[in-house]
Amino acid sequence: MANYKIGIDLGGTNIAVGIVTEDGAILAKKSVKTGSQRPFEEIVKDMADCTTSLLEENNISLDNVLHIGIGAPGSIDTANGVVVYANNFKYGENIPMAELLRKHIDKPVYIGNDANVAALGEVISGAAKGLKNAIMITLGTGVGGGIVINGQIYEGQHSAGAELGHIMIVQNGEPCSCGRNGCWEAYASATALIRQTAAAMKEHPDSIMNKDYTLETVSGRTAFEAAKKGDAAGQEVVDKYIKYIAEGLIDMINIFRPEILIIGGGICNEGDYLLKPMREYINKYVYAGSRLPEQKIAVATLGNDAGIIGAAFLR
Amino acid sequence: MANYKIGIDLGGTNIAVGIVTEDGAILAKKSVKTGSQRPFEEIVKDMADCTTSLLEENNISLDNVLHIGIGAPGSIDTANGVVVYANNFKYGENIPMAELLRKHIDKPVYIGNDANVAALGEVISGAAKGLKNAIMITLGTGVGGGIVINGQIYEGQHSAGAELGHIMIVQNGEPCSCGRNGCWEAYASATALIRQTAAAMKEHPDSIMNKDYTLETVSGRTAFEAAKKGDAAGQEVVDKYIKYIAEGLIDMINIFRPEILIIGGGICNEGDYLLKPMREYINKYVYAGSRLPEQKIAVATLGNDAGIIGAAFLR
Repeated sequence: MANYKIGIDLGGTNIAVGIVTEDGAILAKKSVKTGSQRPFEEIVKDMADCTTSLLEENNISLDNVLHIGIGAPGSIDTANGVVVYANNFKYGENIPMAELLRKHIDKPVYIGNDANVAALGEVISGAAKGLKNAIMITLGTGVGGGIVINGQIYEGQHSAGAELGHIMIVQNGEPCSCGRNGCWEAYASATALIRQTAAAMKEHPDSIMNKDYTLETVSGRTAFEAAKKGDAAGQEVVDKYIKYIAEGLIDMINIFRPEILIIGGGICNEGDYLLKPMREYINKYVYAGSRLPEQKIAVATLGNDAGIIGAAFLR
Repeated sequence: MANYKIGIDLGGTNIAVGIVTEDGAILAKKSVKTGSQRPFEEIVKDMADCTTSLLEENNISLDNVLHIGIGAPGSIDTANGVVVYANNFKYGENIPMAELLRKHIDKPVYIGNDANVAALGEVISGAAKGLKNAIMITLGTGVGGGIVINGQIYEGQHSAGAELGHIMIVQNGEPCSCGRNGCWEAYASATALIRQTAAAMKEHPDSIMNKDYTLETVSGRTAFEAAKKGDAAGQEVVDKYIKYIAEGLIDMINIFRPEILIIGGGICNEGDYLLKPMREYINKYVYAGSRLPEQKIAVATLGNDAGIIGAAFLR
């Protein structure tokens, strides 16, 4: 008898459900719109309905499902299966999501923070497959972090650790959404890159960035595209941004020396244009420098599937 | 039959050897001068001789000793029992210390970095007794760090993690001994405090600090003493220094949310004069602020004994 696990990635836009094998492969997946402004009962019911129909479509009985895991954004009380709060959802605080889902499907339900869960997914089946200790950093709207030690998510007391974007890299620096100033997230997120690019566009009216984009259409690609065309202002934005990313990554290496450091997020599409100077900067300033083997740094390979796979392996 | 473990704290000044019980208490201890500029063979022989005579003086047979643990400064290859390098010792690189000690005393020998070992000691018998996850920060000549997760030292690949003093808190800041700029250690160590105090003494000739101390006698206490007497320049040094400490501690909490955060080092003698404003600053800027229970922060209780006890519990 096959044993499957269900992994659910509860995102701000989509609920993605996957049937995951014991090897960490996705057998089948399906998604529905989240409707994050809806009451939580409706969202949970859609998670259950999507799971049930996915199993039916694949002729898999619930008897063959070990458990269900959910990766959800926000602050999660994993011990009790409760979403403490999630600022992009309207469903209020202290939602007992595991218990609510169990009312629809009578299986054990585990829940974890989405960034932690994605890190676990990459360890199970992605860039860190076969390894035990990994740190994953996702450069998106914010800077998300996940810590895997001995093959397990490390989340700290109250599931409140691994806020890796909220280390300070610039004292008295830019205000961060967390209330502190100078956080890594306020410099290395895609949001920060766009802010830095817009500032450079204003400062350098002649930059090619102002030909191809306006302050309304500026994106995380703007400065990279300009730099590749030889635009000095674009290059300056890129150089500084890469340093911001690298500084936080050096902190991560000095703290954890993980078997692998994984970075994710759309910015990774820049490939070696981002990674090569980033690695050079890291190698230059990391603790013990060249006296130790080079830190392995890889780009996440699973994309959104990391959330499904990692959730399925929660326990 | 009683089972004892031997813990050896190899310091720059003294070699301290202890007979440690299974409960983590020191039954007896003894120390000899390190003579850190001597060849490593002599140092290892003194470690062995000190152990042998301590056991004899306490009428304990080697048969009752399970193993020997050493906490040593510098970069340690714990898997192979090798001191890779230690910058305050003259004994060269890649010293196979565990193997050398075994030639004198035929018992299993384990070795760990002294900061990691001290953290383990505090978990076994000190401020974190009974807990599983602890971060320890020692504010001394540098800023040392130790990570204990699930009751075990976490040291990362090549035993090279837990360099907690080498996170950056000031971009393009003060040069650090590690080659990076702006490290926490370069702002929050006792060495940094003395530098900051001396700079304030030069800048404020009227400060009481210049009455009680000279630039030759200035110490980590100078600014605190002056501040307590109402000296504005001294108070300014203290206020800034406490913020530097707090910024790094906030990083540690956001990353680990440990069950307990332990701080050690002579500066802790300032007690609430240091701890109260430090806690206030941390509570204000830590991630999720008052939505979570206050982070437990305690002062190390074992002093130098932490190194002996932690070493004894290496494995």
